[in-house]
Amino acid sequence: MAGKVKRFNEERERLNRIVLERDNLELKRFFALDQAAYRDGALDARTKELMGLAASLVLRCDDCISYHVLRAGEMGLTNEQFDEAMSIGLVVGGSITIPHIRRAAELWKEINNR
Amino acid sequence: MAGKVKRFNEERERLNRIVLERDNLELKRFFALDQAAYRDGALDARTKELMGLAASLVLRCDDCISYHVLRAGEMGLTNEQFDEAMSIGLVVGGSITIPHIRRAAELWKEINNR
Amino acid sequence: MAGKVKRFNEERERLNRIVLERDNLELKRFFALDQAAYRDGALDARTKELMGLAASLVLRCDDCISYHVLRAGEMGLTNEQFDEAMSIGLVVGGSITIPHIRRAAELWKEINNR
Amino acid sequence: MAGKVKRFNEERERLNRIVLERDNLELKRFFALDQAAYRDGALDARTKELMGLAASLVLRCDDCISYHVLRAGEMGLTNEQFDEAMSIGLVVGGSITIPHIRRAAELWKEINNR
Amino acid sequence: MAGKVKRFNEERERLNRIVLERDNLELKRFFALDQAAYRDGALDARTKELMGLAASLVLRCDDCISYHVLRAGEMGLTNEQFDEAMSIGLVVGGSITIPHIRRAAELWKEINNR
Amino acid sequence: MAGKVKRFNEERERLNRIVLERDNLELKRFFALDQAAYRDGALDARTKELMGLAASLVLRCDDCISYHVLRAGEMGLTNEQFDEAMSIGLVVGGSITIPHIRRAAELWKEINNR
Repeated sequence: MAGKVKRFNEERERLNRIVLERDNLELKRFFALDQAAYRDGALDARTKELMGLAASLVLRCDDCISYHVLRAGEMGLTNEQFDEAMSIGLVVGGSITIPHIRRAAELWKEINNR
Repeated sequence: MAGKVKRFNEERERLNRIVLERDNLELKRFFALDQAAYRDGALDARTKELMGLAASLVLRCDDCISYHVLRAGEMGLTNEQFDEAMSIGLVVGGSITIPHIRRAAELWKEINNR
Repeated sequence: MAGKVKRFNEERERLNRIVLERDNLELKRFFALDQAAYRDGALDARTKELMGLAASLVLRCDDCISYHVLRAGEMGLTNEQFDEAMSIGLVVGGSITIPHIRRAAELWKEINNR
Repeated sequence: MAGKVKRFNEERERLNRIVLERDNLELKRFFALDQAAYRDGALDARTKELMGLAASLVLRCDDCISYHVLRAGEMGLTNEQFDEAMSIGLVVGGSITIPHIRRAAELWKEINNR
Repeated sequence: MAGKVKRFNEERERLNRIVLERDNLELKRFFALDQAAYRDGALDARTKELMGLAASLVLRCDDCISYHVLRAGEMGLTNEQFDEAMSIGLVVGGSITIPHIRRAAELWKEINNR
Repeated sequence: MAGKVKRFNEERERLNRIVLERDNLELKRFFALDQAAYRDGALDARTKELMGLAASLVLRCDDCISYHVLRAGEMGLTNEQFDEAMSIGLVVGGSITIPHIRRAAELWKEINNR
């Protein structure tokens, strides 16, 4: 049962609504830029998700890691590709990323047992 | 003339020699892991370089950025792809990455004028 | 009902007591320096809280962000000023700060509905 | 009652099993390197745990701090030594480490009341 | 004589030209957002510069610190205010910021001897 | 010839003088706390230097690394101990620390050829 994914998505949407209710122009412009950066372009969207995932891992942001893992999963990331993405984050960012890799692996397991 | 690239490579090799002369097992094992992480596998080497580049940008390490820019350039990264890679780093990591993007753009310009 | 603020303050006080019970001179001297840094001086206390908030946002420390948001709220920070403070943190620190901005916005909403 | 320690250890083991089930060579090699780094050598294991603790504190990773506090406790770290270790983390890493020091002090208190 | 300021400004402009020559929409949109964040609004521009300075100090970005020190100086920051800004950065970010505070103090001295 | 060490010490002293000339109470109190943290106590000064070195490595501050390497060298750190200290920093902090390890190894080589 998709408990972790569901909770993550619901909390993310709930809080996003609070931010968007503020109706602040600069925050909205940043959010638009953020979305644009991951669109298919000279680099395809899946490569960009993986870049976002690597960046999130080394910056050790659980919410960001979960988001990119979910997105990459939707785009067909395989088990082996997941492991290699984790390895790059681990080698670049060091053992300090391990607690985040543990939680990412738990999320990934849930996604793939759905 | 490739001044920046040449200086970067020479300094990197000079200092790497000093590290390797130490002949320390753990450092060498880490260096081996580091190289292995970027090899063609379930993800291709070019995607991995871009992930390393994104991670280096948000961690704001000039030497690491230069290294991955040079590697990605050798693997055929286009001008548009370079810009998109910089954009992801900038959006994830914020304006604090701009000084590094400036220097990466200078290096990229030199590479492409060769 | 002020659930989030109350829980934050109670947990903070409970843990602070545990630290202070240790009765360690260096920790107490640091805490004294920390308090002194935010006092009215050549810069007024409210400006200093905003500086502390910006620093906490880009370092992505939820407890620190919550603390400075609460303090700035007590000092009369307006809704528009809150948004501008978040924007600076977001632009300097990048999308990696967004999960923290979401939680700060939730806390801010609760404060202002009291 | 050892609630915090027990929960930490159980969660850590549960998630470690998920990572190890992946049976990925690079992750396992990194984990082996990680363990090797803290073994008695030219520097004794206790000094290495303290170095790991200081590094974890300034990088603000609660799981890593908890792990090294527990390990150092098993190796006979005294109350005074705990305080001095926290002080180094606090001075190097700044007030942004305080929320982590609070939680480390809570864990330490539990360990010593066992 | 204003050696440090002049060199900083010239290098910054030279590299900015290289980035802007790329004529990339996303980079330009981010740069526009960055400028907008520091404009007079509900918070005045000087407060915002101080927030940018505090954020830059704790993120330890020399170029960013120099930029905000120069801007704040142009906006009439006094000697005492400069010290208090440094103190907040130092307390929040710890001794790891000291090398940057040293260089900021050198720049500040040059600005004020002009 | 001790070029690197000499330059490092001279630049550090020159800039420290500029900071101390400011005669600011809070900065001086922080500097006093900083010195106190590394004094012999329940933990000996050499262990504390190694903790400071590990923290500096994972935070990737060249000036701080150089300072602690020099201090640890004066306290009799051996070649093997230097390698093990670097390994801990590398494993905790990841490949992003490698450029700093290279420069630390260069400094260490100079110290030991004196």
